[in-house]
Amino acid sequence: MTDFSYETSVDVRLRDIDFMGHVNNATYATYLEQARDAYFRDVLDVSLAEIDTVLVSLELEYARPIEADDDVTVALRVADLGTSSLPMEYEIRAGGSPAATATTVQVLVESESGESRPLPTEWRTRIEQRE
Amino acid sequence: MTDFSYETSVDVRLRDIDFMGHVNNATYATYLEQARDAYFRDVLDVSLAEIDTVLVSLELEYARPIEADDDVTVALRVADLGTSSLPMEYEIRAGGSPAATATTVQVLVESESGESRPLPTEWRTRIEQRE
Amino acid sequence: MTDFSYETSVDVRLRDIDFMGHVNNATYATYLEQARDAYFRDVLDVSLAEIDTVLVSLELEYARPIEADDDVTVALRVADLGTSSLPMEYEIRAGGSPAATATTVQVLVESESGESRPLPTEWRTRIEQRE
Amino acid sequence: MTDFSYETSVDVRLRDIDFMGHVNNATYATYLEQARDAYFRDVLDVSLAEIDTVLVSLELEYARPIEADDDVTVALRVADLGTSSLPMEYEIRAGGSPAATATTVQVLVESESGESRPLPTEWRTRIEQRE
Repeated sequence: MTDFSYETSVDVRLRDIDFMGHVNNATYATYLEQARDAYFRDVLDVSLAEIDTVLVSLELEYARPIEADDDVTVALRVADLGTSSLPMEYEIRAGGSPAATATTVQVLVESESGESRPLPTEWRTRIEQRE
Repeated sequence: MTDFSYETSVDVRLRDIDFMGHVNNATYATYLEQARDAYFRDVLDVSLAEIDTVLVSLELEYARPIEADDDVTVALRVADLGTSSLPMEYEIRAGGSPAATATTVQVLVESESGESRPLPTEWRTRIEQRE
Repeated sequence: MTDFSYETSVDVRLRDIDFMGHVNNATYATYLEQARDAYFRDVLDVSLAEIDTVLVSLELEYARPIEADDDVTVALRVADLGTSSLPMEYEIRAGGSPAATATTVQVLVESESGESRPLPTEWRTRIEQRE
Repeated sequence: MTDFSYETSVDVRLRDIDFMGHVNNATYATYLEQARDAYFRDVLDVSLAEIDTVLVSLELEYARPIEADDDVTVALRVADLGTSSLPMEYEIRAGGSPAATATTVQVLVESESGESRPLPTEWRTRIEQRE
């Protein structure tokens, strides 16, 4: 069983609800982005808005719908640190129980060239201490 | 190589652009939803808003960023029709070349119970004729 | 000077940031919707998702940009209760100081006919006690 | 009666529909942004993404709901050119008839300082020829 090292809460907005009456499937990806943003600030002490990363892949398994008044959290862990890539595993929880699981792979890039660059040593240390 | 049986265009909105200056990663999932909606109307002659389906999984591989002024289309095919499930494969194209590939699995459900129900025979016929 | 009787916080999402690098202008309207939703739950003890209201008008004056890491709150008051209409005045605050002011007029309607219906007496009482 | 000098179509997305089953009120502001973007490209031959403008105010009067399958266009005109400001009047049309009217005031600014700067003469000429 996956053991998550970090958890953050996400405010469900009325606007997240779609024509089906539940949180829209694409909005789950936004919740993951919010969780990454919180992780970067809390664990790595940087803002996602200040660094250049590229999302390479996203996988979502939807377990059950999320309602407008659900308390939502996203739990995550860094799965297997690459040279430049930061793979993450997530669980989106509504009212404490799993509503979706997800994985993403994100790569750190040079802002000018867009080419991948190694993760800073300090990040590795902080991430490994957290896991 | 995947051979797509359907293609639809998607208007990129300025609002789709995020803090990184490209179309946001979650918005790709919205483009897929638009493509499904167009497919349902054009091929199955029903509106997604009128039937009850549940998205079970979503996978996205991002190949390159999409810009605000890119002409975007989504090509798709139905991968392997299940009893109740409609798996789809997609290619999101910007300026004619691939920007992302994706798969989704969607299940037809009863509106009251939320339980899966068999795809109508007419849908099967229309889908198979299309592929 | 307007004296606001209610204030609620709004989590800025990275996705709220647009191509200009600030919270998108349309997203301010979403923040107002979040504030109305919170007001309805906290003061009127109903969920906006359970009742039928129609937004009749919206006015926004933008004072300064909101950044991704700003702490945002929305202060509001009910301006002048009509028979069926609920006019509201708002101040969107970033880091404690005004980023925008706004007004909306919202009308309570019958769910079937869509015609306006009088605000319940209990709502009037609760709103007037709050102001 | 307002005579609009420009009209552009907007694709309604399934994701634009909210918990009430109609296009969300905040999304109307996104439709206006799309119309401004199209106007800038078509009439001024610049992209909104390449210049620095600030939205100063937004007013929306909602006349009737927009449905998922409505054909939507936005008609607009430039109302009264200021030194640095570009005021616009809009009509959002669904199925050819008015669904909302709106006005915005937008100001051209220096990218570094954020201070207003005069509209280029060429813009004035193009706008006046259009009206």
